[in-house]
Amino acid sequence: MNKSYMLKEYTDTINAYLENVIPVCDFGEDIVHEAMKYSLSIGGKRIRPVLTLEFCRVCGGSIEDALPLAAALEMIHTYSLIHDDLPCMDNDDMRRGMPSCHIKYGYEYALLAGDGLLTGAFGIIADSDFAKKNPSAAVKAVSLLSSLAGANGMIGGQVIDLKNENRKAGIETLSKMDELKTGALIKCAAMLGCISADADEEKLSAAVTYAEKIGQAFQIVDDILDVTGDEKSLGKPIGSDKESGKSTYVTLLGVEKAQEYADRLTDEAAKALEVFGAEKEFLKELAYKLAKREN
Amino acid sequence: MNKSYMLKEYTDTINAYLENVIPVCDFGEDIVHEAMKYSLSIGGKRIRPVLTLEFCRVCGGSIEDALPLAAALEMIHTYSLIHDDLPCMDNDDMRRGMPSCHIKYGYEYALLAGDGLLTGAFGIIADSDFAKKNPSAAVKAVSLLSSLAGANGMIGGQVIDLKNENRKAGIETLSKMDELKTGALIKCAAMLGCISADADEEKLSAAVTYAEKIGQAFQIVDDILDVTGDEKSLGKPIGSDKESGKSTYVTLLGVEKAQEYADRLTDEAAKALEVFGAEKEFLKELAYKLAKREN
Repeated sequence: MNKSYMLKEYTDTINAYLENVIPVCDFGEDIVHEAMKYSLSIGGKRIRPVLTLEFCRVCGGSIEDALPLAAALEMIHTYSLIHDDLPCMDNDDMRRGMPSCHIKYGYEYALLAGDGLLTGAFGIIADSDFAKKNPSAAVKAVSLLSSLAGANGMIGGQVIDLKNENRKAGIETLSKMDELKTGALIKCAAMLGCISADADEEKLSAAVTYAEKIGQAFQIVDDILDVTGDEKSLGKPIGSDKESGKSTYVTLLGVEKAQEYADRLTDEAAKALEVFGAEKEFLKELAYKLAKREN
Repeated sequence: MNKSYMLKEYTDTINAYLENVIPVCDFGEDIVHEAMKYSLSIGGKRIRPVLTLEFCRVCGGSIEDALPLAAALEMIHTYSLIHDDLPCMDNDDMRRGMPSCHIKYGYEYALLAGDGLLTGAFGIIADSDFAKKNPSAAVKAVSLLSSLAGANGMIGGQVIDLKNENRKAGIETLSKMDELKTGALIKCAAMLGCISADADEEKLSAAVTYAEKIGQAFQIVDDILDVTGDEKSLGKPIGSDKESGKSTYVTLLGVEKAQEYADRLTDEAAKALEVFGAEKEFLKELAYKLAKREN
């Protein structure tokens, strides 16, 4: 199968599934339900759920089993963007070229929409056919999501980010921040795919290495695009890192060395895929695509 | 066993368990971990986890199985208070006689502490020995928590509350708001206790009836205390409902009729406990204690 077709098929499948994860409002005031749907629907590349579905496939699992896990992860990613955009955090009015949730629905409802997505994510897993069939694996998925999205995971990354807003962080701090803030959920995505397919330790460990490398490369490219990118194709203003005086891979290494670093990590990610044999191609191509992306 | 001793024993057990649910910060910036611990530790009556433990006991279960579910519920209750106190919501500087989380730690860290407690709650269940022993029941607990705390549960109650801040709500709206905002988690507490003990449908249904009645009575007494209470013993300013022009059971029914209504609901709650025979006494006494409380 053509790989860009596969990517489109995956994102279509995910988008269709996500359209039905928010329950119908049963008490007549549906503003938070609408806000949850809005933010889920303006989702971008769907990299995390694509990783979950593809790792499920390369481990021999069935896409139906992986879908609720992929959706839960995307809901958690989306809640984190809503809360991150709030005035008390990054105060971003735009997200992917559209008004942020709090601009469209108001601060209080955006807060609750984020809470609703986070709360609902765990229910999507618990209420799935997968959980009925394999409750132990569903429990493992809940545990993984809770830990990688929690105070020592993604939220921890946001704490490091806030603490370093007005001081020059070194490369170690930056790398820890990215590992948690962006990396944790990317790693979680790959691991959830393996769990949905009941993969062995060797495959799980390869998935973790791959995800850690592309997660780090992803963040480096993000920093590069903040300097070299095109506002229109990014859907957000460029130069925001420089303006806020933050350390980034670009301020620490320069654009060229940062890109070299991202490329090296991508090579290492591709190498980790050997265990999947001929099935590795899509994931390999995805890694290089992300390293060369323009938005 | 003396019942007030039992209550103290339960709250001691819960408080000791809650002291260890927040993981140690593993990246050196522990402000959100501290904020989570702070808000959990200033918890008040622990009514919800007490209900979980006692329903587990009257259904013949073991307290060790109920504790992680009780703790998860209390973490979710605590996150909802942190987010509710934020300036964009109720803007309350005090909570139980202490500075609110955002006053003590700052707005952004309070937001993240709430997110961390909500995220962590599901992990406490998934990582428990109970989940290892009985993964299907753990999945059921996650599903229940997600739905009763979610957009059609507790969060929905907050939406109704916000939407009716500056208009006079009728008794039906008020009752729906309370059913979701306060009632959903109280019902969840009772149901989680039954789930931890693998109770039959008859007991589960009795627990639901009891919890719905005391949940409603609880809110009515809250409204009464906002008028007749003592600021010091409440730990918060009185008269805030009147000031905000909100409808309450007191503005709609008057203090006397509101108290009569709360008493009738309490009688009905006590009646629902018949199925538990002689074991019902603690829950019965608890219902009457809540209806006559002064804070």
